[in-house]
Amino acid sequence: MAFHLLQRDHSGAQRLGRALDQALTRVRHCERCNNFTEQPVCELCSSARRDQASLCVVESPADLLMMEQAQVYDGMYFVLMGRLSPLDGVGPKDIHLDRLVKRALDGVVKETILATNFTVEGEATAHYISELLGTRGMKVSRIARGLPVGGELEHVDSGTLAQAMIERRPA
Amino acid sequence: MAFHLLQRDHSGAQRLGRALDQALTRVRHCERCNNFTEQPVCELCSSARRDQASLCVVESPADLLMMEQAQVYDGMYFVLMGRLSPLDGVGPKDIHLDRLVKRALDGVVKETILATNFTVEGEATAHYISELLGTRGMKVSRIARGLPVGGELEHVDSGTLAQAMIERRPA
Repeated sequence: MAFHLLQRDHSGAQRLGRALDQALTRVRHCERCNNFTEQPVCELCSSARRDQASLCVVESPADLLMMEQAQVYDGMYFVLMGRLSPLDGVGPKDIHLDRLVKRALDGVVKETILATNFTVEGEATAHYISELLGTRGMKVSRIARGLPVGGELEHVDSGTLAQAMIERRPA
Repeated sequence: MAFHLLQRDHSGAQRLGRALDQALTRVRHCERCNNFTEQPVCELCSSARRDQASLCVVESPADLLMMEQAQVYDGMYFVLMGRLSPLDGVGPKDIHLDRLVKRALDGVVKETILATNFTVEGEATAHYISELLGTRGMKVSRIARGLPVGGELEHVDSGTLAQAMIERRPA
């Protein structure tokens, strides 16, 4: 791409350069959800059609996008922009947990839903936030673990099957 | 394999033939759980170390094996040897639901856990059994649906993510 721009598309390279430059100066973090935006408060946070009583915590903007594509949630978000990872030097401050606590305890939010990944670090992050908010009287829930939709017992790993059994629910 | 046996291993072919013949005459269905066995009642059903109060319903012997490998369940089983599939002409009688009802309502079983697959047919089967036993006062539960262990939001399908959100649980 670099060679093409330098050899055949000087004006295109110029436009791309300016666009990147503008993005870097204009794009910042939303004051409420911490997602990328060009406004002080992003479109989703300013929308009147979203349920203000639910707050969904995700690790990254990509995860927020996935959740929106699933079309099952119409509440608010908080984007950590990372996950707890002591080995990489990522602590609670690096993922803005102080801001999350303030956001969750604004008096309007009734339920905080932890939608971090089911990796070791994502689970640790969820556990930490759960302790942080739970002790302050917030209702905290975690998205479900188990068999995927369309999943067959023969084709899932033992760990997932074990979790699906432990977390079984009334039929 | 057939060519090898015919050309080089006559005695092996004979042994294999006899073994298959013996299997066909000796192996039958367990009177309690419907799994394959050479006894009237299989080893698992006669074991004194299993919890008699739980009954886990699976579609096939392979599914029972998967559940045992997950090492999370120590109750009893019922193997349907199939799933409801009206298009293929498989109805309630073909998957031995009359025997399942009798087995579940023996007075010892306190909970029936539906561990059929999360395919369309597996779900329909679970729903049918749930109605069948629920109306007779049995506690019926279903293994959980959601994100697999180690799963990341970015790499699951929308349907699974939607289910994980709907079936979220207290953290």
